[in-house]
Amino acid sequence: MHTGVCYFPEHWPRERWADDIERMAEAGIEYVRMAEFAWNRMEPEPGEYDFEWLEAAVDLIGEHDMQAVLCTPTATPPKWLLDEYPEIRQEEPDGTPLEFGSRRHYCFNSAVYWRESRRIIENLADHFAGHEHVAGWQTDNEYGCHETVRCYCDDCASAFRTWLREYYDSIDDLNEAWGNAFWSQEYRSFSEVDLPGPTAANHHPSRLLDYNRFASDSVVEYNRLHVDLLREADDDWFVTHNFMGDFDPLDAFDVSEDLDFAAWDSYPTLHTQDAPDTPAPEEMGDDLQRAGDPDVTGMNHALYRGASDGPFWVMENQAGDIRAFPYSAEPDDGMIRLWTHQAAAHGADVVSYFRWRRCQFGQEQYWGALNNYDGAPDRGLEEATDTAAEFESLPDLDAPSGDVAILVDYDSLWATHAEAHSPDFDYWAHLRAYYRALRRRGVTVDLVSTSADLEAYAALVAPSLHLVDDDLADRLTAYVQDGGELLLTIRSAMKDEHDHLRDELAPGPLAEALGAHVAQHESLSPGVETQVSYDGESYAYQTWAEWLEPDDGTVIGRLESGPGTEEPAIVRNAVGDGHVEYVGVWPEADLADAISVGLLERADVPVSERLPGRVRLTERDGYTWVTNFGTDAVTVDAGSGTLVLGDETVSGRDLAVVDAPAHELEIDLET
Amino acid sequence: MHTGVCYFPEHWPRERWADDIERMAEAGIEYVRMAEFAWNRMEPEPGEYDFEWLEAAVDLIGEHDMQAVLCTPTATPPKWLLDEYPEIRQEEPDGTPLEFGSRRHYCFNSAVYWRESRRIIENLADHFAGHEHVAGWQTDNEYGCHETVRCYCDDCASAFRTWLREYYDSIDDLNEAWGNAFWSQEYRSFSEVDLPGPTAANHHPSRLLDYNRFASDSVVEYNRLHVDLLREADDDWFVTHNFMGDFDPLDAFDVSEDLDFAAWDSYPTLHTQDAPDTPAPEEMGDDLQRAGDPDVTGMNHALYRGASDGPFWVMENQAGDIRAFPYSAEPDDGMIRLWTHQAAAHGADVVSYFRWRRCQFGQEQYWGALNNYDGAPDRGLEEATDTAAEFESLPDLDAPSGDVAILVDYDSLWATHAEAHSPDFDYWAHLRAYYRALRRRGVTVDLVSTSADLEAYAALVAPSLHLVDDDLADRLTAYVQDGGELLLTIRSAMKDEHDHLRDELAPGPLAEALGAHVAQHESLSPGVETQVSYDGESYAYQTWAEWLEPDDGTVIGRLESGPGTEEPAIVRNAVGDGHVEYVGVWPEADLADAISVGLLERADVPVSERLPGRVRLTERDGYTWVTNFGTDAVTVDAGSGTLVLGDETVSGRDLAVVDAPAHELEIDLET
Amino acid sequence: MHTGVCYFPEHWPRERWADDIERMAEAGIEYVRMAEFAWNRMEPEPGEYDFEWLEAAVDLIGEHDMQAVLCTPTATPPKWLLDEYPEIRQEEPDGTPLEFGSRRHYCFNSAVYWRESRRIIENLADHFAGHEHVAGWQTDNEYGCHETVRCYCDDCASAFRTWLREYYDSIDDLNEAWGNAFWSQEYRSFSEVDLPGPTAANHHPSRLLDYNRFASDSVVEYNRLHVDLLREADDDWFVTHNFMGDFDPLDAFDVSEDLDFAAWDSYPTLHTQDAPDTPAPEEMGDDLQRAGDPDVTGMNHALYRGASDGPFWVMENQAGDIRAFPYSAEPDDGMIRLWTHQAAAHGADVVSYFRWRRCQFGQEQYWGALNNYDGAPDRGLEEATDTAAEFESLPDLDAPSGDVAILVDYDSLWATHAEAHSPDFDYWAHLRAYYRALRRRGVTVDLVSTSADLEAYAALVAPSLHLVDDDLADRLTAYVQDGGELLLTIRSAMKDEHDHLRDELAPGPLAEALGAHVAQHESLSPGVETQVSYDGESYAYQTWAEWLEPDDGTVIGRLESGPGTEEPAIVRNAVGDGHVEYVGVWPEADLADAISVGLLERADVPVSERLPGRVRLTERDGYTWVTNFGTDAVTVDAGSGTLVLGDETVSGRDLAVVDAPAHELEIDLET
Repeated sequence: MHTGVCYFPEHWPRERWADDIERMAEAGIEYVRMAEFAWNRMEPEPGEYDFEWLEAAVDLIGEHDMQAVLCTPTATPPKWLLDEYPEIRQEEPDGTPLEFGSRRHYCFNSAVYWRESRRIIENLADHFAGHEHVAGWQTDNEYGCHETVRCYCDDCASAFRTWLREYYDSIDDLNEAWGNAFWSQEYRSFSEVDLPGPTAANHHPSRLLDYNRFASDSVVEYNRLHVDLLREADDDWFVTHNFMGDFDPLDAFDVSEDLDFAAWDSYPTLHTQDAPDTPAPEEMGDDLQRAGDPDVTGMNHALYRGASDGPFWVMENQAGDIRAFPYSAEPDDGMIRLWTHQAAAHGADVVSYFRWRRCQFGQEQYWGALNNYDGAPDRGLEEATDTAAEFESLPDLDAPSGDVAILVDYDSLWATHAEAHSPDFDYWAHLRAYYRALRRRGVTVDLVSTSADLEAYAALVAPSLHLVDDDLADRLTAYVQDGGELLLTIRSAMKDEHDHLRDELAPGPLAEALGAHVAQHESLSPGVETQVSYDGESYAYQTWAEWLEPDDGTVIGRLESGPGTEEPAIVRNAVGDGHVEYVGVWPEADLADAISVGLLERADVPVSERLPGRVRLTERDGYTWVTNFGTDAVTVDAGSGTLVLGDETVSGRDLAVVDAPAHELEIDLET
Repeated sequence: MHTGVCYFPEHWPRERWADDIERMAEAGIEYVRMAEFAWNRMEPEPGEYDFEWLEAAVDLIGEHDMQAVLCTPTATPPKWLLDEYPEIRQEEPDGTPLEFGSRRHYCFNSAVYWRESRRIIENLADHFAGHEHVAGWQTDNEYGCHETVRCYCDDCASAFRTWLREYYDSIDDLNEAWGNAFWSQEYRSFSEVDLPGPTAANHHPSRLLDYNRFASDSVVEYNRLHVDLLREADDDWFVTHNFMGDFDPLDAFDVSEDLDFAAWDSYPTLHTQDAPDTPAPEEMGDDLQRAGDPDVTGMNHALYRGASDGPFWVMENQAGDIRAFPYSAEPDDGMIRLWTHQAAAHGADVVSYFRWRRCQFGQEQYWGALNNYDGAPDRGLEEATDTAAEFESLPDLDAPSGDVAILVDYDSLWATHAEAHSPDFDYWAHLRAYYRALRRRGVTVDLVSTSADLEAYAALVAPSLHLVDDDLADRLTAYVQDGGELLLTIRSAMKDEHDHLRDELAPGPLAEALGAHVAQHESLSPGVETQVSYDGESYAYQTWAEWLEPDDGTVIGRLESGPGTEEPAIVRNAVGDGHVEYVGVWPEADLADAISVGLLERADVPVSERLPGRVRLTERDGYTWVTNFGTDAVTVDAGSGTLVLGDETVSGRDLAVVDAPAHELEIDLET
Repeated sequence: MHTGVCYFPEHWPRERWADDIERMAEAGIEYVRMAEFAWNRMEPEPGEYDFEWLEAAVDLIGEHDMQAVLCTPTATPPKWLLDEYPEIRQEEPDGTPLEFGSRRHYCFNSAVYWRESRRIIENLADHFAGHEHVAGWQTDNEYGCHETVRCYCDDCASAFRTWLREYYDSIDDLNEAWGNAFWSQEYRSFSEVDLPGPTAANHHPSRLLDYNRFASDSVVEYNRLHVDLLREADDDWFVTHNFMGDFDPLDAFDVSEDLDFAAWDSYPTLHTQDAPDTPAPEEMGDDLQRAGDPDVTGMNHALYRGASDGPFWVMENQAGDIRAFPYSAEPDDGMIRLWTHQAAAHGADVVSYFRWRRCQFGQEQYWGALNNYDGAPDRGLEEATDTAAEFESLPDLDAPSGDVAILVDYDSLWATHAEAHSPDFDYWAHLRAYYRALRRRGVTVDLVSTSADLEAYAALVAPSLHLVDDDLADRLTAYVQDGGELLLTIRSAMKDEHDHLRDELAPGPLAEALGAHVAQHESLSPGVETQVSYDGESYAYQTWAEWLEPDDGTVIGRLESGPGTEEPAIVRNAVGDGHVEYVGVWPEADLADAISVGLLERADVPVSERLPGRVRLTERDGYTWVTNFGTDAVTVDAGSGTLVLGDETVSGRDLAVVDAPAHELEIDLET
């Protein structure tokens, strides 16, 4: 496990580079990412390339035994390129183009931009091919940031039609799959299908779904262009991309298939304010604002570990106070170190800080760094240095792998968000309700796509797995037959892969395995009474309720409020050697805990005591991190293991590492 | 009184139709509405008509002794039509056209769309002319839904100029009527007048008013095209249209003049959340979310009874849980039946459920139906079947008619909403303050236009009758002279028909009859003290206060808060055999009750005790429905009548019917 | 001190003018402003001028010994002009033009509109040149109202490039100054620089800053055209402009340099609701809604006195209830008089009411006046008449001038608002935190630009003086060297004049004088603990915290909450004969008071007791107004002075005037 940093030599006079880079090495940093926005400096005039400055920076990095990670600079095409080819600009649904002046203003389906991208990448990659100090590449930068996955230009319209032609046998096939008999929406040919622009009412959900798939696929293909060109130039390089966190419009699994591993950019104080399942800033108070929510960050680590199918990188790790929204509190002392360890514990092989030094100009002057804008160390540098030394003291570790996985399905995300049916429904937040519960029991949770090897897991949670085609249904059924424990939740398997309700009630092709079907559903505002039983106890839920009609299935819980009172809400069925359980409500924390414990027990996964507050255990290759995101100290009983880092008492914002699996540890609030 | 249902044969394989239709008949359904969005199936290729499938469905319906109601399919022009004539699309104020992909994307003033509409209607009507199982027609579908009354395209600009030329003698006449001396807004010719597009500040209110009238008139004329063509084809058919509820931009009286009767689409759980005078969902709790507000629904029944000048239809009646905003709670048991009875009691001759079966695709998959998407009965079907049987047990009844009417004036609505002068002012909500009070006294309330026969009523309430021309003033004065009781409220008769303040203070041409004028007005935020006296008692009010200067009028109430303390706020004057009373505040419920009781007493209308909570009495042709929208049971003392339906004890969400007038009944909470 | 009124003869039949104007004179009015929107009546057809009607009105005014103030009518180009030259319309960032139908729809950089403006102004000015009853002119009307300073049309794009060419030596100079190395934003020529249109992320702050400067300068130049033409026609006229209050996009100092004095339009009930540092209407209650906040209004008086560098005018003074947002409460009795006196006390030589009579048509029918729409006196007329008489009883007074100034810097405003870093940061609100504190100590506070003569002041407050170039730093340092007391606050001197962070930490070029620099900053949501010490006492703060590293400076206060606990937050340093103090938090009222008292004491400015509630003392040329904006009565001990107006007891909404300086008075709540 190593640390890295993001550096922008083009922002500083060349005479400062040596000092900067020397101090990086002194801080234990091993990787330096550079040049993701520097097209203007690589090609200051059309066709006139200049990579000398970048090579000089790489060489300096190499001199200190560090490695450079370079980037394709396509996130920011320069002004002369926009002026020569205005058609590369993205367009908003009403046709307004995105102008030069920030970043990500290009369309993924522009043939011109593909050609121009190919040109700069080839030249850049050729220049650095074989360079001993270039470890690998990041493609572009944060695909989709600022809502730029979905474009509405003519190039996209044409590409969308091509995409549909490849997906569907015929226009009749499309009409049938979407259900275009509704509201007279049938097409006579693919050429009649437009992008979903402004229209009076909401769009057809199946059309939106395919448009969202197409838009995500467009990024996948554009990224593949980068990957292919880089590998052509030098096959020893790794290629990755820095994703954003739990981000809606881009399927991280699909993009990652072409990468050596995935990376992501982690800003806990920003993401915690942004998450729909954390309190509003006014109610969040100091604590969460200054430390972040461990499960908001942790679930993203798990997601990109899943996308990587192994270790991943954090390419940008919060290094101090940032330009968070809406508020930008200073992190508490210790948080830079704690976040870095948390990432490593979750399977990051490299945690790279953003950025070395606060920039003096442009859009990110308020984005804190390891060094302040005067060049002197900022609050985080000492913590980063300490962490690097601690990483050195630990052995190299394989990626964590859990016995429990949560299935992530972007198609289901897009379908449910297009028809949220409640202002409070959010796919990621619903996932996190289960992730949180499992993590408070010390369990390692993988987030994997539906195409993952399901047999690797003793238990599977499929939260709102809304769209289930026959093949997936068969695989899930087989999984349970073979002894797997499957947990389905609200809205699961309601529709086929075209967002079409089936002839059978939900969970459609899984209803037989469940021995029950969903008779009713409703969304509920705050203030409405929500009570449900589970295994004889009474619990609160939120946002959503369904009631089920059991056939072979056993009723485990019933609604205790509303017109569905007494109706079954949680049903379980034994199938072969395993079980299917369906939870028809969005559980509050205590119910999620009870459900999770039941699931783990049936799956023979060891269950720890429920951890106090925001303490988390994270196990990686036999080592367990005790990370205390709360403010109260806890004590660690290391079981058979020993403390290889930290003490038996772990203060708030501190951590310890034990060379034993998580379930052997016992954690208590210090008394 | 009968029931109906909405059915979409084009959504289902033909082999299912027979079973569906047979089960409709078994449920006691007598009318089946079809085909309002099926242009694509009626004309799959330009000029190639296919009505065979629809006729087959009609024939099946006829075989079960039911009647079809067919629709002109113009709400959803197919894609090929849009592609051939893109100029038929509506445009937003900034010129963005509404694209294909939902519905209502056409402009009411497109000459091309008139021609195309005429073509499809003629073909369709000719095909079914004389068909014994077609009872009548619905024109188009929900004119104006998704804010589509007002369009800003070139066709509309041209039509608006024509409309103005017909309305005004000359451009000088228009300049004078609007008051274009203000901000240099005078025109030299009609050709200089544009549609009200984006501008720096707010628009001239008189220009907006005429634009709103023009836009509403455009729908009236387009609807008349449908009516004329249908009647030309077969004069025995009825023609109606399914309006939405208390909807702003379309004058329902004007459209209905061309119809045999009006219909409307009633979704109580949606409309109750949407109404500005109901609590926010979070504060509304289960009760209202699952039963709806009886006066939100009831006032719409009264409105469309008024527009029909007799019995009306509910063309779409909520049949289960729906895609309500923001939340979609399941209705309580009994509500489908209670809503259907409520409609009948208010004068609906047919209550038609939306829809027979939940659709498996498209934009309304979350819109519940009598049957679930697997085809099996959903919660509402049994209630609908019971209700149909109950309707059979009752005699045919004439429409209700009240002694009290509320005047509805769309011009006043448009004028006050363009200059609301407070975020809390809403025309319909203000109307409903009086409607609610009268209904809690068991009174039948008609909602009628200002052109109605006023003499038919013992008492008239004119809430915020903002624009009053001389003719209306004369008619209202004559009404009072002849013994009528007229209640004017805040903002009434402030302006002439051009939204122009008069030379005399409000209520302008009625000030003499009132014997007072309005000296001051103000809008008040929540949190400001609002107290007023009325007849010696002290009451709360909200949102608005005026103070009056009496001349001959008698002061009935005075402000007791603010700088107007001690100033007259409620004034009454005897004129001929009647009275005019002016209420200068927006009353809270208790004051509205006191004012209403006073009005009824002066008008010799029998007054019942104030009804408990959300129990309502609704009288139709000598029969009175006791509908209990609350949760607590009540007892019914039937007076001289007998219970023809239900028991002396009426539980929450239940009802009874008594063959006696409402004022003879005595309703008490069960003890 | 005199009163005036705004009159619109073009809105009324000519036969009414004589009566209106006679009654103005009877009310003691001396100035009548006219014709700011009357282009259509001055030039009803292109090239056909008609000034006769206006001259007739001026003559009538003259007959009553009053003076007319005329206006260039350019705020409302007539429809025929728009139709002939549609290119004069402003454009929104996405290119949507602002259409005719309200006002201010023209672009300040349109060459065509310059030519047309010149034409109408020359004709108008020539017509009235030498007219004995025309005292002077108002240019245009409320530049920038309805967000119209910033336009995005092609004319502006071209003008912006010209502006940049004049400002920067070369495109390399611009690239360096802005910091365009960031995100590949470098330009190769000025012709590549566009206006900041729609883009994916936020814009480069330095580009925005220059665009905002350019847009403000465009108004300055357009206004200078008016001034020059008017002075060419008659050099005896004064020329002013009616600004809005604390308005963001227009630099009032720059415009005012070309004027004889500045005027502004004061609507306390509107501005108080609009101010970010007053409670929301729901929490504000009656009191503030009906009287306004004295410091919201007062700070604007001080701003336009500063822009005038002497006496100013209130061109539009609230005369009754208005069309305020969101609520429009009636002012309390006495407020028209109190607001008028407040303006005079702050240095207004003329306070002109808006308007004589409520208009019967158009966009401002809800804008109250001295007379109601029927022509009869409204509530304010008697108060206005009394006030005019009181003004007569007072001697002519010089403008107030304070010993303390607050520096206002629009560049800093634009820079901080572009990067507010918190939803709660507002430049004017932060200024007002100090203004309020000083005013509650009875001190006269000037608001001056950074180019003012600093030496005139014993103490200077520089709130969030964000951008400080070397020259200003030198002047401020010299000011302190020479004995001045300088107070810097949060975010001060963080950046250079291009919104570029310096190589040294804030306060950059003032850090040496302060003997400290800012190590950290953060923005804080409500609900986060915020405690700071000052001089041994503990105080609350809000929104923002910084912690400082002292060098020579003395720590006066330390943070007592958050990760910065114990860190210095307030530092003072003695420099030459004066001091620099830096306050690193946004103080709540008690801390602002303590800081202000300390500052005043060091500066030897007399300090009164803290005034009760919303009572304010305002001193003008040796006379002190006691204005009681609260509701509780206070007693006045006049010290060496005598009461020249009012009594020893001043009721709520009342006032007194004493011929003694403010610090001699003692004000107590009446017991």
